[in-house]
Amino acid sequence: MTEFELIEKFFQQTPKRSDVVLGIGDDCAIVEIPELQQLAVTMDTLVSGVHFFENAAAFDVGYKSLAVNLSDLAAMGARPAWVTLALTLPEANEIWLKEFCRGFFELVKRFNLQLIGGDLTRGPLSITVQAQGFLPVGKALTRGGAKVGDLIFVSGTLGDAAFALKCLREKIPVDESALAHLHRPEPRIELGEEILTLAHAAIDISDGLAADLKHILEKSSVGAVIDVEKLPLSDALHAAVSEDEAFALALNGGDDYELCFTAPASLADTFCEMQLPITCIGKITSQKTLELQQNGKIYHGKTAGYQHF
Amino acid sequence: MTEFELIEKFFQQTPKRSDVVLGIGDDCAIVEIPELQQLAVTMDTLVSGVHFFENAAAFDVGYKSLAVNLSDLAAMGARPAWVTLALTLPEANEIWLKEFCRGFFELVKRFNLQLIGGDLTRGPLSITVQAQGFLPVGKALTRGGAKVGDLIFVSGTLGDAAFALKCLREKIPVDESALAHLHRPEPRIELGEEILTLAHAAIDISDGLAADLKHILEKSSVGAVIDVEKLPLSDALHAAVSEDEAFALALNGGDDYELCFTAPASLADTFCEMQLPITCIGKITSQKTLELQQNGKIYHGKTAGYQHF
Repeated sequence: MTEFELIEKFFQQTPKRSDVVLGIGDDCAIVEIPELQQLAVTMDTLVSGVHFFENAAAFDVGYKSLAVNLSDLAAMGARPAWVTLALTLPEANEIWLKEFCRGFFELVKRFNLQLIGGDLTRGPLSITVQAQGFLPVGKALTRGGAKVGDLIFVSGTLGDAAFALKCLREKIPVDESALAHLHRPEPRIELGEEILTLAHAAIDISDGLAADLKHILEKSSVGAVIDVEKLPLSDALHAAVSEDEAFALALNGGDDYELCFTAPASLADTFCEMQLPITCIGKITSQKTLELQQNGKIYHGKTAGYQHF
Repeated sequence: MTEFELIEKFFQQTPKRSDVVLGIGDDCAIVEIPELQQLAVTMDTLVSGVHFFENAAAFDVGYKSLAVNLSDLAAMGARPAWVTLALTLPEANEIWLKEFCRGFFELVKRFNLQLIGGDLTRGPLSITVQAQGFLPVGKALTRGGAKVGDLIFVSGTLGDAAFALKCLREKIPVDESALAHLHRPEPRIELGEEILTLAHAAIDISDGLAADLKHILEKSSVGAVIDVEKLPLSDALHAAVSEDEAFALALNGGDDYELCFTAPASLADTFCEMQLPITCIGKITSQKTLELQQNGKIYHGKTAGYQHF
């Protein structure tokens, strides 16, 4: 099959949106932005052997390549709309492509997106996705708005993906739910939209809570104290490792794709009533450092987020 | 240097635009589209060893990775605005990065673009760029509008890039101007905007004139006859190869990044007055085939455009 036949067979299955004037198949796609909305734009690459194992399931690679981008939109509070996909493949393996697309389009369909274009090339396996979404003018949730006295919240549970990765590397059997956190993270789109006008600052946790929270602290010129014992851990992680190892994974493990955000303390009750899937883990301080509190002791947070170079 | 330090050092040099609310450095960029404009979106990948030689000059790789995307915007008649860059590198070679950026930002600056985000990852050398630009509502120049009786025009000269590539592959000395066509193609942005409301259909020539013109013919449900002797050839190509070889390179060689478009015959004089850098090479017919006319003979066009798979 040629490049054009592959695109026709595998990538035209995208849902259609009314704001897409022209989709796949011309020199450019053409789209329309609703009135009073700004556009949020993010782009992430997954490279075989770096971001996923060379023998990773194609479904998971397709799913995750889009999920990590949607997670970035969620962290701004944006509503996702369009995606483009640059897929570089060593060969046109149709079984692999079918599974990749099953994972990719699961999220496309769930979030009512349209794949509007991209590029299909031959080379070492690598996937770059660009996702775009809408934000009401002036409402974006950036990393720079945290205020002294804000509470710090995280969604879901932390450390599961890092635990699963560790087990895979060490060839230790691992719980399916932990594997799901690693391979099929849930982009927190609904949560991002719900906190958009309430939170002061937000980020998605891809490099580990401590490393990513530090981005908020730097951009907001503030500090934080984290109550380590409040870090939300899954039952599976609790059961599998010591408490100290679980907290270390929750603090410094990567690939969680949960949201971390700050909001005025006065909103704590509101969040409770909204039944958001979040946990309060600490507060913003004026100290410009990240402090960790555990068993009554305070120490400085290490931020060993993944380094590519 | 870490990923963040590299981004700070090399990629923050981008010009700033007033329609960019938030640029590099948060989970997403945020941009604003002017009223009554639609957004044109394109994405292309260049892979080392596939789209350029492994020892290619970093300047040329940076320049071309953006040029091929701008060429797609030009083919729609769009005015470029923002770019994102996913750069995957085997190592953080600062000399290479500096040269890559010199090439990339030459075009960023020339066309008053802003680099608004992207991703820097470790892996086999590969570059994916997404470029976005503006189009007045409903005015896009697609591949689908060619009408029987339209004249067919191409910009610049054809075949030089394919000739240069052939010489490099066969280790034959090659003229600097032909090399420039291959390594540093000129995106025809101004021309695209000038013909936006005049032309009926357009495409940029990346896979060879015959292969790309066929896309117009298919989308428009028409045919074409090309007068081979009218194909615009550079003096360098004329001097280097036989006339038949030159015409074959112009018809089927790739990497030209010139525009091919169709327009009503009544506009030929207007185009002359506008002094556009274009040549009329044939006309649109109702036959639904591509015919080539040379020395009074007519034969069918081969369309052997580059196949990735």
